[in-house]
Amino acid sequence: MHTQFTGWDDTIAALATPPGVGAIGVIRISGKAALAIADNIFPAKKISLQPSHTLHVGLLKHNETVLDEAVVAVFKEPRSYTGEDVIEISCHGSNYILQQVLQAITSNGARLAKPGEFTQRAFLNGKLDLAQAEAVADLIASNTEASKRAALGSMRGGFSGALKAVREQLLKFAALIELELDFSQEDVEFADRSALYAVVNEAALAVHKLISSFQLGNVIKNGVSVAIIGKPNAGKSTLLNALLNENRAIVSDIPGTTRDTIEEVLNIDGILFRLIDTAGIRKHTSDIIETAGIERSIEKMKQADLVLYIFDVQDDADEIETRVQEMKAQSLNYILVANKIDRLNDAEGRRIFGHYDKIIFISAKDGLHTETLKERMTDAVLHGKIQTESSIVTNARHYHALKEVATSLEDIRLGMNNNLASDLLALDIRRCLHYLGEITGQVTNEDMLDYIFSKFCIGK
Amino acid sequence: MHTQFTGWDDTIAALATPPGVGAIGVIRISGKAALAIADNIFPAKKISLQPSHTLHVGLLKHNETVLDEAVVAVFKEPRSYTGEDVIEISCHGSNYILQQVLQAITSNGARLAKPGEFTQRAFLNGKLDLAQAEAVADLIASNTEASKRAALGSMRGGFSGALKAVREQLLKFAALIELELDFSQEDVEFADRSALYAVVNEAALAVHKLISSFQLGNVIKNGVSVAIIGKPNAGKSTLLNALLNENRAIVSDIPGTTRDTIEEVLNIDGILFRLIDTAGIRKHTSDIIETAGIERSIEKMKQADLVLYIFDVQDDADEIETRVQEMKAQSLNYILVANKIDRLNDAEGRRIFGHYDKIIFISAKDGLHTETLKERMTDAVLHGKIQTESSIVTNARHYHALKEVATSLEDIRLGMNNNLASDLLALDIRRCLHYLGEITGQVTNEDMLDYIFSKFCIGK
Repeated sequence: MHTQFTGWDDTIAALATPPGVGAIGVIRISGKAALAIADNIFPAKKISLQPSHTLHVGLLKHNETVLDEAVVAVFKEPRSYTGEDVIEISCHGSNYILQQVLQAITSNGARLAKPGEFTQRAFLNGKLDLAQAEAVADLIASNTEASKRAALGSMRGGFSGALKAVREQLLKFAALIELELDFSQEDVEFADRSALYAVVNEAALAVHKLISSFQLGNVIKNGVSVAIIGKPNAGKSTLLNALLNENRAIVSDIPGTTRDTIEEVLNIDGILFRLIDTAGIRKHTSDIIETAGIERSIEKMKQADLVLYIFDVQDDADEIETRVQEMKAQSLNYILVANKIDRLNDAEGRRIFGHYDKIIFISAKDGLHTETLKERMTDAVLHGKIQTESSIVTNARHYHALKEVATSLEDIRLGMNNNLASDLLALDIRRCLHYLGEITGQVTNEDMLDYIFSKFCIGK
Repeated sequence: MHTQFTGWDDTIAALATPPGVGAIGVIRISGKAALAIADNIFPAKKISLQPSHTLHVGLLKHNETVLDEAVVAVFKEPRSYTGEDVIEISCHGSNYILQQVLQAITSNGARLAKPGEFTQRAFLNGKLDLAQAEAVADLIASNTEASKRAALGSMRGGFSGALKAVREQLLKFAALIELELDFSQEDVEFADRSALYAVVNEAALAVHKLISSFQLGNVIKNGVSVAIIGKPNAGKSTLLNALLNENRAIVSDIPGTTRDTIEEVLNIDGILFRLIDTAGIRKHTSDIIETAGIERSIEKMKQADLVLYIFDVQDDADEIETRVQEMKAQSLNYILVANKIDRLNDAEGRRIFGHYDKIIFISAKDGLHTETLKERMTDAVLHGKIQTESSIVTNARHYHALKEVATSLEDIRLGMNNNLASDLLALDIRRCLHYLGEITGQVTNEDMLDYIFSKFCIGK
């Protein structure tokens, strides 16, 4: 099923726990020699004769030197993470001891594992498909409930299952259409065209759903960058503090206090918003540092997923209108934040600015309506797309492959509508199968795998 | 046997692996509720019904939320580290996930463990004596072969065994002598005085051996501080580099180049030497920074375990003699390093300085005899005391208790020589038993235990 990879018959070992001082550290060994190595360094008991999924306590030794007193866990193939024989050794958490034990293991014939190599073997041995394997890295990196849930969903087969079902159906049609080509003189039709058409339509629907989940997936995985923009003293830093409920930025009444961009992270319902407080936007200034700050502001605004444009409700309405037009022209995703509502009659503010649809009236100083602002921020990014139970695409590689799948499905449909010759139709289906297979790993090449797994941590 | 400690019937949990990103993180639970908690958060299988020392793979859940896919290890009491039911859960190494799992465990009735609390329970349940328990922390902190070996030796019962044997014998005699007191009118002698005398002599010998091992133990555990002292341009930095085989200090021919003290670590045969290169010692200088450096030098020299006094073989012999007398007056442990032997006829150097017994002739620049100097440094600290197979005391608490034991043994011996009354003799034996028990933990109090275990890391 897979290409034969060089050196994947050997035995690998690595520290699976973070470096640093802890009560214990765990070393993992996987491969044909794992049990024999354990027998050599753990003379108390013949580990290779022990049943799978058992634990054994005793001394680790190398050339008569006692290395540590340790717990050895045995997982026999195929009932292990990698699908190979796996030994996990819990040592005392001294880096010196862990290095010594690793050395003993390598001098008994194992080599140090490359990043992600255990998971790569799990994939090569069919324990996980590629999308599931990639989700393992996402799971380790997860830092919110939403990102954990998305990664765990993918790891447990989330959308791979659906894609594999589509792929199998298309594969059957491809085979039938290719069979027709062998009998082309006889003008037979083995593949039921209307059934194929239905499968393609259904697949297109599922794929589009997955593609549109990527916006949410990306937000879940990478968070949302929010630029807080506004004139000096509009209350940007006060707003930042109100959102974070702490005094992070130095707030003063002197215009232009904030010079460095500050980045803070806010977790709203499991989505990470990275708030960037920027130097006030001012067109004319003689202060060079301040000018550099403004350039960064404009840059940040263009790069941000969401712009909070904050202004004093007592500011000139024409100027605000100019800014709104600029943001619209640049297709920015923005919310207008009319601040200092405490200084003005609410009705008065709404009279001047009430015609904007993306506006919220707040008092950052008093924390008035800042919770509502948080809800609006989530809405502005997700467009009500939070349906956490369905499959979510969080991986850019999958997203790009899915777009190719969608294009091929559209090509197949168009081809069928236009009575495309069977041989060309078969090519389109094969192309679609190729991209589907790239996601789940049924189509791979060594470079791609090496690249994917090199982003993992060592020991996984 | 032990005092009853408050709250030691409850169930504790902690992260046992270092914080930070790794492939896996391990959470440990110990106590009466450990199995029930595992049953609650691991619904795939009834963990409490599984045999001890087995591994189980499945989903961790809390209130229907999937926390992670994990491996659960079961150790049933008394066959566990703490002697209680112990569950170890290997999760994916995301701090977010590990925190969530810990929260699920605590909301199921466990509480977060204090530093060293697992080992403290192992001690309270009689799995380890106190000296063994203390060695666990040393083992985790070990960073050389010698420190690891000493800690592992102590943890596996090293000298506790010998001390317990002594304590048992003395306990028997104490009981017999106390029995005599009940029959004091009848002038009987249940305790064979000559046998007691032999036991006391033998114990004194063993205890003195352990006490004198502490110098080595301390060196092994804490390393040796070495002050490299000498006039400007005597070659201190060059010597440091030669010992370390690298260019750590900036070496120049301008006197007084080295201003900051530099600390480097050199591992000679498993002993860590912390080399302190200091500003040159010069009596008269107008340079204030240089002066501050010199004050530090003199301070370092007094604090150091070993002083390498380096000088140019062409220097004035009278000045060297003055320095040697100063070091002798201060009872410093020193080696005279006659440098730049390459510039002089060897015989010429030996003619002038050959009468010093603690001298070595080297050329730091050419690395001539620097290896011999390393041997001399080891000898100067250990006085040939390296016998790594016997028990070594590395713990200052044990050392001080052993000194008290030695004093009491001497008191018993003197008392017997002077026909001391039995009741007073019994008191001396009880005092000796007390200090012996303090080492192994047969005599403890809660404050002492809390202090000892508070120095552990959490999760151990």
